[in-house]
Amino acid sequence: MEYFPAPLERLVEQFARLPGIGGKSAQRLAFHVLSLTDQEAREFAEAILQAKELVTCCPVCQNLTGGGLCPICASSKRDAATICVVADPRDVAAMERAREYNGRYHVLHGVISPMNHVGPDDLQIRSLVDRVAQGGVEEVIMATNPDTEGEATAMYLARLLRPFGVKVTRLAYGIPVGGHLEFADDATLLRALEGRRELL
Amino acid sequence: MEYFPAPLERLVEQFARLPGIGGKSAQRLAFHVLSLTDQEAREFAEAILQAKELVTCCPVCQNLTGGGLCPICASSKRDAATICVVADPRDVAAMERAREYNGRYHVLHGVISPMNHVGPDDLQIRSLVDRVAQGGVEEVIMATNPDTEGEATAMYLARLLRPFGVKVTRLAYGIPVGGHLEFADDATLLRALEGRRELL
Repeated sequence: MEYFPAPLERLVEQFARLPGIGGKSAQRLAFHVLSLTDQEAREFAEAILQAKELVTCCPVCQNLTGGGLCPICASSKRDAATICVVADPRDVAAMERAREYNGRYHVLHGVISPMNHVGPDDLQIRSLVDRVAQGGVEEVIMATNPDTEGEATAMYLARLLRPFGVKVTRLAYGIPVGGHLEFADDATLLRALEGRRELL
Repeated sequence: MEYFPAPLERLVEQFARLPGIGGKSAQRLAFHVLSLTDQEAREFAEAILQAKELVTCCPVCQNLTGGGLCPICASSKRDAATICVVADPRDVAAMERAREYNGRYHVLHGVISPMNHVGPDDLQIRSLVDRVAQGGVEEVIMATNPDTEGEATAMYLARLLRPFGVKVTRLAYGIPVGGHLEFADDATLLRALEGRRELL
């Protein structure tokens, strides 16, 4: 038996399908929507439709864009000879926040993961190889996550790109800034030791 | 600076306005919407608009309804001589789940709360008094929450309804079923003792 009117039940169901939203949270969110003004509810619905409709992938780097080339690929100020390969559009945002990198990106939209049935053909790997094959690229920086799947994907791509004679690099491992040595795991400490640099 | 396309940023903002959804969660939800099919995204947007448009308050009991009288007020099987007063439509759902109550409801849409600037005129109190004044009501059960504001609201209503000669009752206090005496607070234990009943 349903205790709420059908349109409200349907909205609760929609919220409950979102990741990390349980039944009780979905109910709270649906009730919140009822408390919005008509204008606010329209804006919310409109935002869902527009994000879905207007956000596409950049034909060059596969990052999300509001249409056509993404701002980074379109910018003549960004170094086209360097490509930073990341798994997810959110990783581009993280790199950009660091305000250090001035090259371009390539978004794989995932990592190779046999456990989850994700193979190289399910990712934007062909388009990366095509970009490198066209020439003009000097360095490809692998910035996939430092976990097993991210590592394996980086290694796979490095081998794939070697024939083109480009430099393939990997982000440095080490202790995170602001972290505590005491809480660093063995693998991280080992990598931090291996990668130590001379001071002064 | 924005790192995501504008339509995506707008959707993140919309999610971030929901109660209990922080910035990171809003981002995750917005990316989830991008992964929906067009059809699913349309259904989501549609559910928001329809809930807002079609869900209204029952003109009699003020509970939420898909239009017109709510199913409980419309049902001739429900005892019209008993009104259970609750603060929120979700409390009606909780009572209905217990499958014991066969009377009707009245939803106040809040409780009197001077701290939050909610006075009697901000609640559905006038409509409750009108219902009782029309006659035919024998008992009004106060089922507001057992906290300070719920108590105060119940007392206020009891005084307001006394002139009409109806019986005004309050839900029983006591130890919750399945609870542990050991963890019960003093106030609850005191009420449970006061309300003790003879066995057999």
